Amino acid sequence: MLFHVEMTVKIPHDLDVNFVNELKTKEKAMSQDLQRSGKWVDIWRIVGKYSNISIFNVESPAELHDILSNLPLFPFMEIEVKSLCKHYSSIKEGEL
Amino acid sequence: MLFHVEMTVKIPHDLDVNFVNELKTKEKAMSQDLQRSGKWVDIWRIVGKYSNISIFNVESPAELHDILSNLPLFPFMEIEVKSLCKHYSSIKEGEL
Amino acid sequence: MLFHVEMTVKIPHDLDVNFVNELKTKEKAMSQDLQRSGKWVDIWRIVGKYSNISIFNVESPAELHDILSNLPLFPFMEIEVKSLCKHYSSIKEGEL
Amino acid sequence: MLFHVEMTVKIPHDLDVNFVNELKTKEKAMSQDLQRSGKWVDIWRIVGKYSNISIFNVESPAELHDILSNLPLFPFMEIEVKSLCKHYSSIKEGEL
Amino acid sequence: MLFHVEMTVKIPHDLDVNFVNELKTKEKAMSQDLQRSGKWVDIWRIVGKYSNISIFNVESPAELHDILSNLPLFPFMEIEVKSLCKHYSSIKEGEL
Amino acid sequence: MLFHVEMTVKIPHDLDVNFVNELKTKEKAMSQDLQRSGKWVDIWRIVGKYSNISIFNVESPAELHDILSNLPLFPFMEIEVKSLCKHYSSIKEGEL
Amino acid sequence: MLFHVEMTVKIPHDLDVNFVNELKTKEKAMSQDLQRSGKWVDIWRIVGKYSNISIFNVESPAELHDILSNLPLFPFMEIEVKSLCKHYSSIKEGEL
Amino acid sequence: MLFHVEMTVKIPHDLDVNFVNELKTKEKAMSQDLQRSGKWVDIWRIVGKYSNISIFNVESPAELHDILSNLPLFPFMEIEVKSLCKHYSSIKEGEL
Amino acid sequence: MLFHVEMTVKIPHDLDVNFVNELKTKEKAMSQDLQRSGKWVDIWRIVGKYSNISIFNVESPAELHDILSNLPLFPFMEIEVKSLCKHYSSIKEGEL
Amino acid sequence: MLFHVEMTVKIPHDLDVNFVNELKTKEKAMSQDLQRSGKWVDIWRIVGKYSNISIFNVESPAELHDILSNLPLFPFMEIEVKSLCKHYSSIKEGEL
Repeated sequence: MLFHVEMTVKIPHDLDVNFVNELKTKEKAMSQDLQRSGKWVDIWRIVGKYSNISIFNVESPAELHDILSNLPLFPFMEIEVKSLCKHYSSIKEGEL
Repeated sequence: MLFHVEMTVKIPHDLDVNFVNELKTKEKAMSQDLQRSGKWVDIWRIVGKYSNISIFNVESPAELHDILSNLPLFPFMEIEVKSLCKHYSSIKEGEL
Repeated sequence: MLFHVEMTVKIPHDLDVNFVNELKTKEKAMSQDLQRSGKWVDIWRIVGKYSNISIFNVESPAELHDILSNLPLFPFMEIEVKSLCKHYSSIKEGEL
Repeated sequence: MLFHVEMTVKIPHDLDVNFVNELKTKEKAMSQDLQRSGKWVDIWRIVGKYSNISIFNVESPAELHDILSNLPLFPFMEIEVKSLCKHYSSIKEGEL
Repeated sequence: MLFHVEMTVKIPHDLDVNFVNELKTKEKAMSQDLQRSGKWVDIWRIVGKYSNISIFNVESPAELHDILSNLPLFPFMEIEVKSLCKHYSSIKEGEL
Repeated sequence: MLFHVEMTVKIPHDLDVNFVNELKTKEKAMSQDLQRSGKWVDIWRIVGKYSNISIFNVESPAELHDILSNLPLFPFMEIEVKSLCKHYSSIKEGEL
Repeated sequence: MLFHVEMTVKIPHDLDVNFVNELKTKEKAMSQDLQRSGKWVDIWRIVGKYSNISIFNVESPAELHDILSNLPLFPFMEIEVKSLCKHYSSIKEGEL
Repeated sequence: MLFHVEMTVKIPHDLDVNFVNELKTKEKAMSQDLQRSGKWVDIWRIVGKYSNISIFNVESPAELHDILSNLPLFPFMEIEVKSLCKHYSSIKEGEL
Repeated sequence: MLFHVEMTVKIPHDLDVNFVNELKTKEKAMSQDLQRSGKWVDIWRIVGKYSNISIFNVESPAELHDILSNLPLFPFMEIEVKSLCKHYSSIKEGEL
Repeated sequence: MLFHVEMTVKIPHDLDVNFVNELKTKEKAMSQDLQRSGKWVDIWRIVGKYSNISIFNVESPAELHDILSNLPLFPFMEIEVKSLCKHYSSIKEGEL
């Protein structure tokens, strides 16, 4: 099932720079693993913001929460989740 | 270039039902033509709402406005547009 | 899987009273059928409001949207959906 | 009587980690005691958030405030309380 | 138990004036009955607004909802309810 | 004249605990003095929040500001003031 | 005592034009009477809006409500009232 | 002096179509006259919306209000005005 | 020309007290100079808040920004500016 | 293509002053280079705020994000981007 997720990153300015860079490196690696596995279908940057819009394809809401809450930047993100389903005008087959 | 568009439909309850159905039929046909042309890349229903989230791939902001403002339901929709660009964690090539 | 749904009913004051009463009667019947089937787990009135908070247990987001969008009062409701999953402090077994 | 409570946890990033872990351990124990006593009827995680939605069954508003304000994480939570009552479509007997 | 209720009246301008006046007359009578019974403890006008702030002293949330939803102007009011309890600085005895 | 005041306390987590306790002790004493004088007519806790709703009976807006801005916790409170007057349904005599 | 009042006029487009013009003529006359009496100290138009910001000097909140609720356009206005008092930097004498 | 103006048009769906078209024709003519006079410096469409963002260069706030409140669509627009001045990074000479 | 300015002061609790007092002293002196010059026409405290509402009479928006951005407390204030013009009901001559 | 960008600067009060000044100097230089190149078409200060409104003329959304995210003050700014296109009343040729 598909979920629409918007993540906004707010890193406190007084965090240690090396710690932040380490978090970002781990975040990128974990995101790319999930993209290769097909769980994290799309990730785009919103122009002008330290935010992304992502599409996830997971087995359950629980799996989605497990993925999101284990992201290294999770403690510094505001996350909005929307459940998606097939639109009656969509021409895509079998997706949802 | 890609745009993220969220459309919420609010049809006044005192509109003529046949007129509304005609608008919806035209809207669906126009949406499916645009999907087949590759301009309207994705369209999903948000669960529980008369809203959709869509991804458009167009030549310019002007083309996007031309598409949206010509949708039959445009006078009855609230539309939010966000410009997208490639996320530094994305593994997709050549998309944006 | 469980979803948390808040529905707020806003019936235009110039709708025909008999039509509205018919909608409400059908809504109640449909709600009670869904409660008996186990899909609509809980429904509570929010004190002072023409709103309810409900818990649904469905097979997929698509099934939830199918249920909600077929409610007789759907055209006159604002609906907010939240996906739920097991809380790490919960003592309930096997629910989510 | 039943109350709907939404708690959002916002832990300042510069709190001592051991102190935070101690708070969380105590919070979990207190929550589970209250669940076993029947006061804290339900607790769910909202997908993608460090928030829960809970249902409490208490003797009075005063008892609810007493419970909430003594939670170890209370100083770091935003809490919204809604009073619930029986919905006229509900098939449950004797609950509220 | 005490509840804090804020009611804002929004009467559609195209309602029949006599019907509205009848509603207001009934509303006033019902409010004064409830004040005399001790259920509706206080009612104040907010300066500059067609709104009131009221304090109710009822047996249960269900009784409060029963009172509010039977007010003649209920279909034309936005109502916000807050549960109250004793403040640790209060010098009043036995109230809550 | 009567004013409706809602105070929400937000104490920064890195304030010295003894300093905070001293502020709270002074706040309580000052509040109780004002209650005994008849200026601070009512104070209730909002269930689930570190907030109160209060009714003040003062000689002028200036007197109210003087009271509020001298509260020990004033620098750590968000305060909303509403002017009240007699409601046309009120059965109380001579109050406002 | 002084009050800061912001009034926003929202006239339904299907009101009779002559009725609206009559309301506006009465509103202007009443406003000018109150300005001449010294009650309505200032009235300014907010640039680009059908709104005004006004300063009233009245004997009590009750008098202010009496004035505002008797304005001919009152049923079609959203009104926000703020109590004012002397600022410690003000050089004006005896005003508040 | 320069002002930043955002206008959002909301035309009630039950207005007469010919009347609306007449308003739009007059609006366009008046806008173009003001553009040619140098008062209305810029006007852009916001993509996906029935809104514009405009820059005005006028002699005074009063002149701006006079222009805006005389636009044929003024009764059907929500308008937000912001005063602009020279930015300390701007390389433009003599503009503000 | 007249501007309506609302300033809300938010001083971080960990600023040095002497530094803050120095800022306040300078702020008061500068405000009183501007009041005596006729630029800062009115300043009122909003009851219950660390905010003021002020009326400025300046030559241009640029002059207003110059005044506001040089206030000692500017870095710790949230400021909202509204342009004012003559209201058609105003009986004041020659003011705007 | 044109974009409307509003940037609000929020510099934490405990940042080192020299570091902040260095950032501002670099920001100004980078802004002026981009203005001279024709990418950053306009930049205005919003009166009373530490914010600017800017118009950018870029080749793509990606180029705009690249510019904005490399500004020295980017980590301390809230940025809102709106896509613009030609308004049907505009008399400018060939701009969008």
